[in-house]
Amino acid sequence: MTAGLTLGDLALRFGCELRGDPDTTVVQVATLAHAHDGCISFLANPRYRHALADTGASAVIVSQEDAEHCPVAALISDDPYVLYARVADALHPAPEFAPGVHATAVVHPHARVADTAHVAAGAVIESGAVISDGAVVGPGCIVMDNAMVGAGSRLVASVTLCEEVRLGARVLIHPGAVIGADGFGLARAPEGWVKVPQVGSVDIGDDVEIGASTTIDRGAIDDTVIEAGCKLDNQIQIAHNVRIGEHTVIAACSGVSGSTTIGKRCMIAGAVGFVGHLAIADDVVVTGQTMVNKSITKAGVYSSALPMDEARQWRRNSARFRQLDDMARRLKKLEKRLEALDRKRTDDEH
Amino acid sequence: MTAGLTLGDLALRFGCELRGDPDTTVVQVATLAHAHDGCISFLANPRYRHALADTGASAVIVSQEDAEHCPVAALISDDPYVLYARVADALHPAPEFAPGVHATAVVHPHARVADTAHVAAGAVIESGAVISDGAVVGPGCIVMDNAMVGAGSRLVASVTLCEEVRLGARVLIHPGAVIGADGFGLARAPEGWVKVPQVGSVDIGDDVEIGASTTIDRGAIDDTVIEAGCKLDNQIQIAHNVRIGEHTVIAACSGVSGSTTIGKRCMIAGAVGFVGHLAIADDVVVTGQTMVNKSITKAGVYSSALPMDEARQWRRNSARFRQLDDMARRLKKLEKRLEALDRKRTDDEH
Amino acid sequence: MTAGLTLGDLALRFGCELRGDPDTTVVQVATLAHAHDGCISFLANPRYRHALADTGASAVIVSQEDAEHCPVAALISDDPYVLYARVADALHPAPEFAPGVHATAVVHPHARVADTAHVAAGAVIESGAVISDGAVVGPGCIVMDNAMVGAGSRLVASVTLCEEVRLGARVLIHPGAVIGADGFGLARAPEGWVKVPQVGSVDIGDDVEIGASTTIDRGAIDDTVIEAGCKLDNQIQIAHNVRIGEHTVIAACSGVSGSTTIGKRCMIAGAVGFVGHLAIADDVVVTGQTMVNKSITKAGVYSSALPMDEARQWRRNSARFRQLDDMARRLKKLEKRLEALDRKRTDDEH
Repeated sequence: MTAGLTLGDLALRFGCELRGDPDTTVVQVATLAHAHDGCISFLANPRYRHALADTGASAVIVSQEDAEHCPVAALISDDPYVLYARVADALHPAPEFAPGVHATAVVHPHARVADTAHVAAGAVIESGAVISDGAVVGPGCIVMDNAMVGAGSRLVASVTLCEEVRLGARVLIHPGAVIGADGFGLARAPEGWVKVPQVGSVDIGDDVEIGASTTIDRGAIDDTVIEAGCKLDNQIQIAHNVRIGEHTVIAACSGVSGSTTIGKRCMIAGAVGFVGHLAIADDVVVTGQTMVNKSITKAGVYSSALPMDEARQWRRNSARFRQLDDMARRLKKLEKRLEALDRKRTDDEH
Repeated sequence: MTAGLTLGDLALRFGCELRGDPDTTVVQVATLAHAHDGCISFLANPRYRHALADTGASAVIVSQEDAEHCPVAALISDDPYVLYARVADALHPAPEFAPGVHATAVVHPHARVADTAHVAAGAVIESGAVISDGAVVGPGCIVMDNAMVGAGSRLVASVTLCEEVRLGARVLIHPGAVIGADGFGLARAPEGWVKVPQVGSVDIGDDVEIGASTTIDRGAIDDTVIEAGCKLDNQIQIAHNVRIGEHTVIAACSGVSGSTTIGKRCMIAGAVGFVGHLAIADDVVVTGQTMVNKSITKAGVYSSALPMDEARQWRRNSARFRQLDDMARRLKKLEKRLEALDRKRTDDEH
Repeated sequence: MTAGLTLGDLALRFGCELRGDPDTTVVQVATLAHAHDGCISFLANPRYRHALADTGASAVIVSQEDAEHCPVAALISDDPYVLYARVADALHPAPEFAPGVHATAVVHPHARVADTAHVAAGAVIESGAVISDGAVVGPGCIVMDNAMVGAGSRLVASVTLCEEVRLGARVLIHPGAVIGADGFGLARAPEGWVKVPQVGSVDIGDDVEIGASTTIDRGAIDDTVIEAGCKLDNQIQIAHNVRIGEHTVIAACSGVSGSTTIGKRCMIAGAVGFVGHLAIADDVVVTGQTMVNKSITKAGVYSSALPMDEARQWRRNSARFRQLDDMARRLKKLEKRLEALDRKRTDDEH
């Protein structure tokens, strides 16, 4: 936490309108409901609008429209959530790490660690690896042979980068993530499965964030690629030779099978599964638990998961699902019979 | 394994009825099918009743009802599985760990480790962290700045606790779990996604168990909370600001999206997904692979996953699913036409 | 990478037909599209046949049929993908590891490490553990009490083997995998959940490969068993007392619940969930995201996930799903009414 910033400072720094005393100091962010003196809060989701009137915050980040109803000082923005993100970053900056290599870290003599980089206790940096300016390799991280961590990137803790993996600048990787393990390549021979060597690597662009325990496999021949600005949540699985376009976000527990390419600025919800060898257009949105079983050629929203029901109703309906084709045929037959009846009746009448 | 316990000791210790020789000693647990002399087994699931007659066990834990058919000594309980759990714990107690810090562990001078705590090889304990009485930090675990491990808690191995995370007493965390990584908070700005600082933490209650490779994210502003007595299986994802009520159990591979609250004593099966901002009542049961897409206000059983079928049938039926709305409209139309026909016929008859 | 091999060498070593100059040397594998001089490529998937004509490769591994159209030297095989796997392994052999224990590895005095084994920086090997001939324990791996790593096996990095776990020969385990954590065994007592001690272990057969962040739990009483030749992808969850038959492959993000047994040579796609206590036959194929909710007694292909649709259509159809039982009843009623009408009409006509 910082010593605090005045609302005047914040308005000036982020170029936004201020209603209220520019000398008021805020020291931390808080939710509308839990804010107290010295806190700055925000209102972006209408479902929390009811909490505005009674907030204990010293100031609230709001839209022009909500500013009317703000009982305390207001920082006004067309996009309160983006402004909140910037203010929160100003008040709660990411931790700083002193340059240097901890005595218990193991750095191979053929690795290169920049003077301004930080390597924490218990980290292991193998031969040929490069840790660039200002990068942070947290405790227990493993950087294997010839892997490369770009400038200002941070491996939080217990991250594993396998051989040859390359990270761009300002990449942030959370604990337990594994980048560059072998892809799942197997050829079926009479005596069993033969391993297909995975000789590609992984290329991660600038400003990518990768969640805890997410796994991104190395390519079979060419590389697996995560383009700049992508944000991946926890426990995501990216198979070999996948390519994910710039600024695409993927929520937790989703998986992308081998050689599928996903476009730019897509938004993939949680627990979505992509089969392999697909091409997904730019600006596609996929809702939770969808099975993406074919390529998507145009922007739009796509789904496949059924909504929840009470188990009793659900059992009845799902039992009928197994009769669905039969039902469709019977429906067709009924339509034909009714048509015949109608025809007959009309004939009779003439 | 212990030197063994007599059936008389066990009956006395757990207050249960014994049929058989109290001086018989048992040294280990075993399944009915694989038990031999010196083993104690149990019968709780009726599907294994057939194995009772031929068991080689020296004693079996059974219900009053099954005791009639037990060919060997019987410890009788209203709930044989609970009694089995207690007997197994008596015969196979959790390992003991000698107090002390391994020479290769790295403990920051500003961390506090209780004299009775055990810190294993390769563990890293950062500044401000607290390891309480009798706690065990296993090999390769990382306890980051100001994190707190409650009395008698155990991090088995390769567990990561991020900054400020707090564990209650007797918490058990299995390898690869990551507690307190940043939540997935992003604001969409014209130039790309802006990271929303995650300034909350994680609060884990007493007697919680957390499975291997499970991830629990820190809160965006307020904390993520797992209440006392919860049991989480492996590879579960808990997003920021989720709250899970006391004694709720969640099976493997399930995920809970941000700000959802789950009640007390719920039982969530495997691979269930909760969307965000929901409220789930107490005593709710959710079956496997369900998408919980709305709040649940009353106890009950809830589902959404379809049962498996042979692929040929399944393809036919799932193709029809895409015509379901059309089928419903055609069905309605048929009903109307038939009604009209009926009416007409009745009119004709008069 | 090696110094390269001649096509004549490769043809001889793998017993395949060569069309072209046996003295041509290839040094690396490449895709048809990205190959250049000195590369050997392959054509196994018909979808890439179009790329054959323009390849820059020096040689291509092809079927007899495709050999006709190969513009460069051809190695001919009935199964080009298997031959490719072997050639790739010859050109890009797995890394060699020098025997010895790194100075920063921690090996308990009661552990046994073979002279020919390699133990990397930061690894921890606890009491009673055995590291066999030629085995590799990578950086940051934890081998707990009495665990056993078979000859020629490799733990790549940050792998955790819990107490007593046994690996066969030539097992390959990728980073973040956890073998032998406690199974999810709980008994419900009035005061909350009682932990059921998990006293079994895990037994992994020869030539098994286990993906990044996959978790395999120890048995409750008997062992969890993965038979020889199985290949498990990333982020798979195997619960206690599961048994998986020889040469079965499972793709990423799938989960198998407790006590389920899967046969030999099965092929399980990604994100499949098996409920507990099932028996699955040999040679079963399960498609992606299926919920396997009952035992499978004969070989075949099984499914349950719905295909994706545009969200608008999908919402319409999935809303109807909740009326499916009602629709089925109404359809039946219509059929009866139409039959009655028909009968009546026939009666009238007579």
